[in-house]
Amino acid sequence: MMSKMTIATKKTPGNNRQQSPDLWGVPLMTPIKKIARLFNPYWLACIPLTAIIVIIWNRAAVAGDGEAPTIEELQGTLNTIWILIASILVIFMNAGFAMLETGFCRQKNAVNILAKNLIVFALATIIYWAIGFSLMFGGGGDGNPFIGVGGWFLSSEEPATYGLAPFPAGLPISVFFLFQVAFAGTAATIVSGAVAERIKFTDFLIFSLFIVGISYSITGRWIWGGGWLADMGFKDFAGSTAVHSVGGWAALVGAAILGPRYGKYSENGRSNAIPGHNMSIATLGCLILWIGWFGFNPGSALVASKDVPYIAVTTNLAAAAGGITATFTAWFKDGKPDLSMVINGILAGLVGITASCDGVSYLSAVIIGAIAGVIVVFSVGFFDNVLKIDDPVGATSVHLACGIWGTLAVGIFNQDAGLITGQFQLIINQIIGIVAVAAFTIPLSIAVWLVLKNTLGMRVTQEEEIEGLDIGEHGMEAYHGFVKEADVLGGSTPGSFSHADEISHQQ
Amino acid sequence: MMSKMTIATKKTPGNNRQQSPDLWGVPLMTPIKKIARLFNPYWLACIPLTAIIVIIWNRAAVAGDGEAPTIEELQGTLNTIWILIASILVIFMNAGFAMLETGFCRQKNAVNILAKNLIVFALATIIYWAIGFSLMFGGGGDGNPFIGVGGWFLSSEEPATYGLAPFPAGLPISVFFLFQVAFAGTAATIVSGAVAERIKFTDFLIFSLFIVGISYSITGRWIWGGGWLADMGFKDFAGSTAVHSVGGWAALVGAAILGPRYGKYSENGRSNAIPGHNMSIATLGCLILWIGWFGFNPGSALVASKDVPYIAVTTNLAAAAGGITATFTAWFKDGKPDLSMVINGILAGLVGITASCDGVSYLSAVIIGAIAGVIVVFSVGFFDNVLKIDDPVGATSVHLACGIWGTLAVGIFNQDAGLITGQFQLIINQIIGIVAVAAFTIPLSIAVWLVLKNTLGMRVTQEEEIEGLDIGEHGMEAYHGFVKEADVLGGSTPGSFSHADEISHQQ
Amino acid sequence: MMSKMTIATKKTPGNNRQQSPDLWGVPLMTPIKKIARLFNPYWLACIPLTAIIVIIWNRAAVAGDGEAPTIEELQGTLNTIWILIASILVIFMNAGFAMLETGFCRQKNAVNILAKNLIVFALATIIYWAIGFSLMFGGGGDGNPFIGVGGWFLSSEEPATYGLAPFPAGLPISVFFLFQVAFAGTAATIVSGAVAERIKFTDFLIFSLFIVGISYSITGRWIWGGGWLADMGFKDFAGSTAVHSVGGWAALVGAAILGPRYGKYSENGRSNAIPGHNMSIATLGCLILWIGWFGFNPGSALVASKDVPYIAVTTNLAAAAGGITATFTAWFKDGKPDLSMVINGILAGLVGITASCDGVSYLSAVIIGAIAGVIVVFSVGFFDNVLKIDDPVGATSVHLACGIWGTLAVGIFNQDAGLITGQFQLIINQIIGIVAVAAFTIPLSIAVWLVLKNTLGMRVTQEEEIEGLDIGEHGMEAYHGFVKEADVLGGSTPGSFSHADEISHQQ
Repeated sequence: MMSKMTIATKKTPGNNRQQSPDLWGVPLMTPIKKIARLFNPYWLACIPLTAIIVIIWNRAAVAGDGEAPTIEELQGTLNTIWILIASILVIFMNAGFAMLETGFCRQKNAVNILAKNLIVFALATIIYWAIGFSLMFGGGGDGNPFIGVGGWFLSSEEPATYGLAPFPAGLPISVFFLFQVAFAGTAATIVSGAVAERIKFTDFLIFSLFIVGISYSITGRWIWGGGWLADMGFKDFAGSTAVHSVGGWAALVGAAILGPRYGKYSENGRSNAIPGHNMSIATLGCLILWIGWFGFNPGSALVASKDVPYIAVTTNLAAAAGGITATFTAWFKDGKPDLSMVINGILAGLVGITASCDGVSYLSAVIIGAIAGVIVVFSVGFFDNVLKIDDPVGATSVHLACGIWGTLAVGIFNQDAGLITGQFQLIINQIIGIVAVAAFTIPLSIAVWLVLKNTLGMRVTQEEEIEGLDIGEHGMEAYHGFVKEADVLGGSTPGSFSHADEISHQQ
Repeated sequence: MMSKMTIATKKTPGNNRQQSPDLWGVPLMTPIKKIARLFNPYWLACIPLTAIIVIIWNRAAVAGDGEAPTIEELQGTLNTIWILIASILVIFMNAGFAMLETGFCRQKNAVNILAKNLIVFALATIIYWAIGFSLMFGGGGDGNPFIGVGGWFLSSEEPATYGLAPFPAGLPISVFFLFQVAFAGTAATIVSGAVAERIKFTDFLIFSLFIVGISYSITGRWIWGGGWLADMGFKDFAGSTAVHSVGGWAALVGAAILGPRYGKYSENGRSNAIPGHNMSIATLGCLILWIGWFGFNPGSALVASKDVPYIAVTTNLAAAAGGITATFTAWFKDGKPDLSMVINGILAGLVGITASCDGVSYLSAVIIGAIAGVIVVFSVGFFDNVLKIDDPVGATSVHLACGIWGTLAVGIFNQDAGLITGQFQLIINQIIGIVAVAAFTIPLSIAVWLVLKNTLGMRVTQEEEIEGLDIGEHGMEAYHGFVKEADVLGGSTPGSFSHADEISHQQ
Repeated sequence: MMSKMTIATKKTPGNNRQQSPDLWGVPLMTPIKKIARLFNPYWLACIPLTAIIVIIWNRAAVAGDGEAPTIEELQGTLNTIWILIASILVIFMNAGFAMLETGFCRQKNAVNILAKNLIVFALATIIYWAIGFSLMFGGGGDGNPFIGVGGWFLSSEEPATYGLAPFPAGLPISVFFLFQVAFAGTAATIVSGAVAERIKFTDFLIFSLFIVGISYSITGRWIWGGGWLADMGFKDFAGSTAVHSVGGWAALVGAAILGPRYGKYSENGRSNAIPGHNMSIATLGCLILWIGWFGFNPGSALVASKDVPYIAVTTNLAAAAGGITATFTAWFKDGKPDLSMVINGILAGLVGITASCDGVSYLSAVIIGAIAGVIVVFSVGFFDNVLKIDDPVGATSVHLACGIWGTLAVGIFNQDAGLITGQFQLIINQIIGIVAVAAFTIPLSIAVWLVLKNTLGMRVTQEEEIEGLDIGEHGMEAYHGFVKEADVLGGSTPGSFSHADEISHQQ
């Protein structure tokens, strides 16, 4: 990294984009500057020259021949580095979702769930690079309020191509894309949890391409790309609707069309709990998501400023409040503090605060999170026992129910325009936004799921489902060398799976 | 995030705190600036006007009507973002502690330990927001040297409320709170490990509220809130005493009052090893803690400067040295390199360097870490075999023994005032500080533990302990679907637990 | 952290290195500045004094008596903080490698693999601090082009000691060392995977000291320390050769000399798959490595600038492309989407883009990653079935094969000098560099491995290998309390291991 050759290389990264010689020339003294430094003391009495020098110093970077960045440029660089770090935190959420979902499901499907969660960010990266980013931002706020066009494959280096002029905080396109693609990946990951343990691997891959590349990007246009919801006054700071509800609707529809897992509902309609296989990694996943959210919410400011940590504190307070109320709600309801409800309560608080994290008081953040923690407990029961939609990890409760709540919460608690200020317009806008996104995402998702169902077939065979998707879809198992209950119950040799026993053992 | 509406929203996060329009207006050119840029070349000869422009440029942000931040403001923003990131790293340590403690204990208690580690940071967040932060910093350094008052629920946005004027590095209250609450959570987490596998869930929650909200916050006042130990000259840069010893004392007292786990000591007084159930996640926990410490120690500088990475290097050297000496000490002592001692040695080195990381040479850092690595090995043996206090994860050895060592190490190795400079005052101050914190924390912890013991009862029933707290306290198991030894030894069907066999199998 | 005492302490961290009072004095107003602020408005008409004040303001930090940093200093601080964060991300990769390698191997060797991965970064830290850093950078670019000398034990605070004057971006030595030691640790970690499940613990420790302290550091000199390859025009931005190929060659040689694991090859020469034991943590490891690479590649810019995220985007696109092509290549080849190939494909893409990430177009990044994903699938088959070198985790395929590919890819796709621009010199340079590093690393590694083999013995006994290294080398097991297949197959009581059955069960 140190040689002159390498440094020379570094001066021209990426298509010579953003060629600001001053960014790279920091340690190099130009002759004029050297002279200025040497002689400055003697020039004190010489006012005109001094003034010229001062101006040169201040203008050097702008003129492009100099050394030091201007203070605006440095603020821009700081913004860039902060959003880069926030992007990394959001990308780390893939690990959180992967561990959470895998841990909450059965070991016989672990490889399948891990593979889905791993490949989905790869697919999201490519499809969002190719078309999603353009559908969401192409042409920008002055363009089509429903769908973006242009700049496919990140082909333009002009912010104006993506409606980003004046770009907030002078971020380069690259970091804005990285942050956005990290968000886009989340939407597909949410779906993964709800359809787990019975969907065909290929179907999930295709649906992921659709939701990231098309559905999420178009509704994202409306909300964040200068589209009609944004113009109308809909507020969704970090994506309770734009990310979580969108993923939640697609997940709900998918889980409903797929039908419940084999053995989930008894003939008398009673719901059977199907316990997860690894609460250690599920808890780890929750904690990874918790810190990932410090990129998700504070990073959505898109600048580095002293206001950013305020968002981190509201986010943290809501997560804490959600975890606590969900724990105690489940405790009172079921008699025991259920770890999966501690986990889902924290996530509920996080989803709940996502839309409003920048504009509510600390106390409001606690209230929003606390209510989300209660909602998630009852929502899980509602989907499971009333609607009888089988969602193995509670994704619809966390992301859809609390995503809707979080979007409404802006209209209630926003300090400038929420109900608490006596104004009604914002809450109406929020309701319109929620309904509009649902009205777009639900039918489109139904259509895609039904096409998949009627072409490839959506669900693995019952035999494969009972044996586990790991063997059926991937030909391997996640925990080789351990004896599983299915092995013992089904016979004397590992590798043979007794289907009836497996199901009858579910608690 | 991109629409004008959203940007408008972002301008007023959180109670309109820190409204610095210049922070948000970076990419926007004000008319006056545009004119200045256009005409500047022609004004070169016009000295008076030039000077005025230069002054406007330099003063713009101060005057509040302008565009670019001043360089001091930008330094403050950089400080803010760095401390935000450091806070996130420290919060990530919750994942490290959760994995470490869970892995070091038995699978039948995994859900309980995971639930404790997850909910404890939620509780810490709320109680420290409500009262702890005020007890620690309220009124500040000019206030009561023993206990802080005021600004409850983070209700004030004035740094002076928390004695933070002039605040170091111009941090906003929000990020300072976030960093402090991350630290506060650590103290309760330390206790969790020592009382694991037999304490009632409710008791632990209540004790956590006490230690974070009251005990830690009051001694923290003395050390970091401008209190009497700080005034006296006690030095504890990142908390060998303020965090680790405090947690360690409470843990020691709790473990002693609780008594050992069933089966830990034979009738002849011999200590039986009770192996952990998942060394993979324990090692992961150690590695997460290692990187979390790069927020813990370097972040404690509370500014972004070129000195910060120096702290990261001393921290890393001490961790490495501790890991190596613990490995070889255990190897020579017991004949095999024990993975749990590699882990605890690294943590010992990290705790050991925490108080002195900013003020010792690289070589001293290696020595401090190396000694900590030896201490932890013998301390584990001492607590286990001599004192017969059962600490499942070695928390008292890592955090208390090495916390004391680390606090003394400041007095020995500090380059300005340690024994190596021929001065004695600092080491005396350090001893006073260690004793004072112990004299406060021990009796108070005893009192709270005894109240809990005599009201709720502190310990689960023996039957529940043998069966595992996961079933007893939470009604679920961590690794559903896997066959455990207890199942096999106890009978032919999973779910029945044979108590006698379980214990007899402990190595 | 708040008291005056503590702040005073913080003013002199580390040998009083980098004493820039202005870095620490931000919140303190010097009298002269206070006066300036108070009276400035009245001085507007007073041009001479104004000019002087402006100059004082601009010069304050340089003169060392002032308050605000200069803009160059602030850029330097931002560079420092960014590289510190990048270092932390790279250090986190240790957790990624540990989980990946452990998960891909068998549970009976998990403790051994975890211990290796944990202690290796501790050893790397100490040996690289003692000698490696000096061999790599000592004397710098004007010194010996083959090997560095001087500044042992990081004893100098002068950048010039390490050939770092003018240092890129004004980084302090401390953070540059931290970033470099994080890289150095990687080389040894790569070896760990290839020799897993049969090497003696002691041998691995010794070889790690050699590769980090000597081999990697010397070839690193050539490439990054201003040595002969750098002078010649060899380009390796973030280390496809300098890190990955070096580790890969040593791994290949070690695996070849060690021989395959017991049971890996049947008597008829057929290769038997030996499945890993924990795909959950292996996948987690991959995702940790993915985000760690955002420190590895973008951090290698060694500055904070708006060009940095461009590198992050090329890195991410290549990872995604590699994951996708490896998945589909394995799918077409073997009929199923193999999770271990999704993982290795992502890592292949990351290794492949490492050398060229700063200087290729987005499309080229996708192509480079996509080809790496194909290479890794066929490379695994080639090493396994053709060369019959047993590499349990595919480390040679990921790091060596794709490291070579990534180094060649610079010569093909570099936008300034690659084949796509019609130039041939760079690709020739790249080939020379690859050959030179191989010609140095291979014989030296062979020599060290052979010395170890003929003194300590390199391989555990066959009995120990069959029983598992955890019991043999460490006297403990990783997953106590779980029933393993070896227990069941070998008899009725846990703890007895049936060797024949164990092997016969391998698929």
